[in-house]
Amino acid sequence: MSAERIDSLLVTDLTAIRWLTGFSGSSARLLLSGGSAVLFTDFRYEEQVRQETLGIGTVILKGSLAAELSSGTWNLGDCMALQADHISWHDMQQLSASLEGRQFHGVNAFFDEFTEFKHLAELEKMRHAVEISEKVLDQVIPMISPGITEIDLAAEISYLHRKLGAEKDSFDPIVAGGVRSAMPHARPTASRFEPGSLIVLDIGCIVEGYASDQTRTVALGRIPEEARKVYHTVQRAQQLGIDAARAGIAARDLDAEVRAFIAAEGYGEAFGHGLGHGVGMMVHESPRIGTTASRTLYEGMVFTIEPGIYLPGRFGVRIEDMVVLGPDGALPIQRFTKELIEL
Amino acid sequence: MSAERIDSLLVTDLTAIRWLTGFSGSSARLLLSGGSAVLFTDFRYEEQVRQETLGIGTVILKGSLAAELSSGTWNLGDCMALQADHISWHDMQQLSASLEGRQFHGVNAFFDEFTEFKHLAELEKMRHAVEISEKVLDQVIPMISPGITEIDLAAEISYLHRKLGAEKDSFDPIVAGGVRSAMPHARPTASRFEPGSLIVLDIGCIVEGYASDQTRTVALGRIPEEARKVYHTVQRAQQLGIDAARAGIAARDLDAEVRAFIAAEGYGEAFGHGLGHGVGMMVHESPRIGTTASRTLYEGMVFTIEPGIYLPGRFGVRIEDMVVLGPDGALPIQRFTKELIEL
Repeated sequence: MSAERIDSLLVTDLTAIRWLTGFSGSSARLLLSGGSAVLFTDFRYEEQVRQETLGIGTVILKGSLAAELSSGTWNLGDCMALQADHISWHDMQQLSASLEGRQFHGVNAFFDEFTEFKHLAELEKMRHAVEISEKVLDQVIPMISPGITEIDLAAEISYLHRKLGAEKDSFDPIVAGGVRSAMPHARPTASRFEPGSLIVLDIGCIVEGYASDQTRTVALGRIPEEARKVYHTVQRAQQLGIDAARAGIAARDLDAEVRAFIAAEGYGEAFGHGLGHGVGMMVHESPRIGTTASRTLYEGMVFTIEPGIYLPGRFGVRIEDMVVLGPDGALPIQRFTKELIEL
Repeated sequence: MSAERIDSLLVTDLTAIRWLTGFSGSSARLLLSGGSAVLFTDFRYEEQVRQETLGIGTVILKGSLAAELSSGTWNLGDCMALQADHISWHDMQQLSASLEGRQFHGVNAFFDEFTEFKHLAELEKMRHAVEISEKVLDQVIPMISPGITEIDLAAEISYLHRKLGAEKDSFDPIVAGGVRSAMPHARPTASRFEPGSLIVLDIGCIVEGYASDQTRTVALGRIPEEARKVYHTVQRAQQLGIDAARAGIAARDLDAEVRAFIAAEGYGEAFGHGLGHGVGMMVHESPRIGTTASRTLYEGMVFTIEPGIYLPGRFGVRIEDMVVLGPDGALPIQRFTKELIEL
């Protein structure tokens, strides 16, 4: 904060608050100033905040935070920083009106340079989350048949995540069969799985606040030759991404290497999203790895490598692992096979 | 928009976008200007936007929205409105920098006065969601025993919601036994249910984009006399809330009637949250019903009545139904018994 010349910072990003304090409630703002930290929440979390935090001042708000901060109780200093990317324009205006005459300074991506680098304890939680999701894949892939729907399979995935020890899904499972596999972010539908089609399974869970994320594409019955060719192209692209990742590479350059390979194979237009993203307490976090990415990749970062080829109205393939960047390059956390599974 | 004297409005609230256009993707901004509507999304949703919307212009963004809007292609007019409560200060600053010289007008709760009133078609979807959740309660309450954990039960609830036809939970199920029942927003833990304790179950699901929300508190084995007394106090308070709700009452006054009753019973300090909230495409939406609420309740609104009494370190009770306000007062959508279930 002294580097940014700010006297106080109001943290409004709930994930950062959980990372800093341990508190996981949905109503929280954290004021950092002069070496002290005060957490503002509401009545619903009075008990939980006591259980989850230690050595941090807590205020149960009855009115608005703006009113509380303008009471004169709190040392905000002359220049107060707000997380511009985690506060609404409305809340900023309200604070500004209540704390008239104060200078506000917007900061963005403030904690990213800390949270991008994972400790071993954080990595262990993510490894555990990956283990659980891999057990889930082991159990649900054999269930795929013409008799069940995408929603059925998604229900099994969420259920098994929790039964096997996760807090919950890290995002709503993507189960996309047939033409829906060409939609990178398809929602599960009541459609049944059709023989001769590809099915994209993109799933993850949360263990002690940390996320996993993984995608596999499997075939039900015999698939057309081009689908097989696209599968192997994506498989090679994904391995290329893992092999090319190294400490010091610009995220944009890593994306470009894989993108050039897919383009050379004739599918340049069909890979429309970024190559990957950081994973931690958020399933999508910094560093982003895409055509407009600005970060450099370093040892200790955990991110996904997930190229895809999507042919609208026909089919799509995506393969995704999380990797840890170490001195010898990127090591995938997942162990689940990436060979084409034909059911 | 003409009442607010604005030429264009950038809608950034995803729920409002789904309500207006049908598009349910996670990346969407909608520009309304001069009678036309244009939806901006990204590559991941190219297929989905075609399937979910009709007669609306769509742009697949490659760069930032700010860059696109400053291209001169779009008719923004002189005064452009932004949803101040649904855009980050950062995004507002970015637009402001790209569209230099333009006047921005922040609007708040812009669609609330429309979405607060439900059509019959919307009500039917919510009734369906309630039916599913009531079947889930029917199935999971008998599972409560010292042999299983809160997380186990939460996993069953989410699983059954989807198996019975819901899109998904409308929020993470609350399953809170023993001392955790005193936490209004407890997360399920690996704790097992203890004989002689109360268990709060707060669950809901989504059907065709519309939410349900419901709470029941049940007893495992014989509970202490005060727990029984508190249960009956909450039960009477909840019925009082239903009976007192009528078209034209200020939301704050309805809250006050129930609050006064609970205080007269000696538990005034133990009811820390609001009496209820609107339910629709959002599980929590306008009108809020609490001590600082500003809205008036009218026919056609759907909201919860959910008083609770929470005794930290001991136990808590909450009972919640959704009601529809009609000419004869408030009719609960739920039918599930509110008598104390003793397992």
